[in-house]
Amino acid sequence: MSQIELVSEFKCFEGRQAHYKHQSKHLNCSMRFGIFLPPQAEVARVPVLYWLSGLTCTDENFVQKAGAQRMAAELGVAIVTPDTSPRGENVADDPNYDLGQGAGFYLNATQEPWKAHYRMYDYVVEELPELIEAEFKVNKKRSVCGHSMGGMGALVVALRNTHRYQAVSAFSPIVNPTQVPWGDKAFSHYLGDDKSLWRLQDPCELLSWADASQPLPMLIEQGSDDQFLKEQLKTDAIALAAQKKGYPITINYRSGYDHSYFFIASFIDSHLKFHAEHLY
Amino acid sequence: MSQIELVSEFKCFEGRQAHYKHQSKHLNCSMRFGIFLPPQAEVARVPVLYWLSGLTCTDENFVQKAGAQRMAAELGVAIVTPDTSPRGENVADDPNYDLGQGAGFYLNATQEPWKAHYRMYDYVVEELPELIEAEFKVNKKRSVCGHSMGGMGALVVALRNTHRYQAVSAFSPIVNPTQVPWGDKAFSHYLGDDKSLWRLQDPCELLSWADASQPLPMLIEQGSDDQFLKEQLKTDAIALAAQKKGYPITINYRSGYDHSYFFIASFIDSHLKFHAEHLY
Repeated sequence: MSQIELVSEFKCFEGRQAHYKHQSKHLNCSMRFGIFLPPQAEVARVPVLYWLSGLTCTDENFVQKAGAQRMAAELGVAIVTPDTSPRGENVADDPNYDLGQGAGFYLNATQEPWKAHYRMYDYVVEELPELIEAEFKVNKKRSVCGHSMGGMGALVVALRNTHRYQAVSAFSPIVNPTQVPWGDKAFSHYLGDDKSLWRLQDPCELLSWADASQPLPMLIEQGSDDQFLKEQLKTDAIALAAQKKGYPITINYRSGYDHSYFFIASFIDSHLKFHAEHLY
Repeated sequence: MSQIELVSEFKCFEGRQAHYKHQSKHLNCSMRFGIFLPPQAEVARVPVLYWLSGLTCTDENFVQKAGAQRMAAELGVAIVTPDTSPRGENVADDPNYDLGQGAGFYLNATQEPWKAHYRMYDYVVEELPELIEAEFKVNKKRSVCGHSMGGMGALVVALRNTHRYQAVSAFSPIVNPTQVPWGDKAFSHYLGDDKSLWRLQDPCELLSWADASQPLPMLIEQGSDDQFLKEQLKTDAIALAAQKKGYPITINYRSGYDHSYFFIASFIDSHLKFHAEHLY
């Protein structure tokens, strides 16, 4: 019996853009996700790119604004877009945009009142791929990409699970969350005082422990006019961490671009091609 | 002195996606519009495609959801996206989605309480192009495209002003509004009982009077699974009208596609190429 329920469905670039809901065992609530299935999925199992969105987003922003379906249809890559946190009346929340619902930070919370539902790390790494691979015509080749908080999430889940992903990329990621206000606030609330847990959510820290002899293909896109670059994103930190470690990483700084979906749309094709190279 | 005020601006595909507001003399209220300027506009005046949106839309829907900027940047075409009606507290409105604000139907209202502001026809045909051509690095080559109510608007303004446009296209247009519930309701309220005014807003009627020896290039895209096709759009009516008249028109029925922006996104590239062929 299917564990998922169709919410909406649209034909799109000869493929299918759908949204589903399901009961998540790790998050302990009903969750929605989007999936784009390229036309190739009608005849063969296709690989999957997981897209992790940023603060305040849902499963819909990327689907509606990034314009990714065109190239995904051409390359034969499915795209799965989870929500950014557990949701619902019984789920802990906060009035600020950078904590609580819409701000799950792709981690497993250890603190009250968050730990009952906020387990986005387990959801994204284990539960969701298991579900997707059981329910859709996809294979087990996976890669991950994300934006801002989701760029951080993509780098974290990939660096901690290099065997599970073929490649990772990020737009405007929070690369060093233990050192910036967004990360400091979120980790204090979700993870408490144990800084060893914080470091497991920090791409720069994870990179310093990574095996540079077996690097995961890694691509970062960063707008030079991003309003969050200096205070929250600090892209140079991961360039430095990679250099210290001898870990190969491509970072493209894009002159004049900001933090918006117009930036993502402008460069999503090149990221999809990067992922497809490693997924096929 | 500039007549427009910048609201927002984003770099996008090496061009610029901006929104402006201005005081409209025809609509007698403050109006917003979007404009995408391709990178070519930095060095030369470029032609302009006007996009007319459907019911409930603003100047933003197409900009965020259609994914048109990529191809427009490649082809060197600017895209201007007006709002779908006059707006504001002092502007007449109706609680239903298909009348009042968000439902201007691209006509000049003659009836109370609408006639003080609802003059979208004059706004789209005269005021807006005049403003755009004064304020931006564009030339006087224009074409027009739209969706649903805006597909009707595109066909109407083009067929009534063939000298002003190089080409026209439409997604899921209301081709015969005098014969369907949306048109009947809107025209009754905005135009009253004078059916001669109704006919001036009906693409099928206009086509029957058109000069088939000097046809305007015309392209229509219609999803076969569009939920409004049978009751409101009736695309076959314009195919028949064109056939009767010997007026060349390309109508593409697309199997499985619906009325959504996922349909528009799937085929917007081919429409942009069609317009660029006639704009350059």
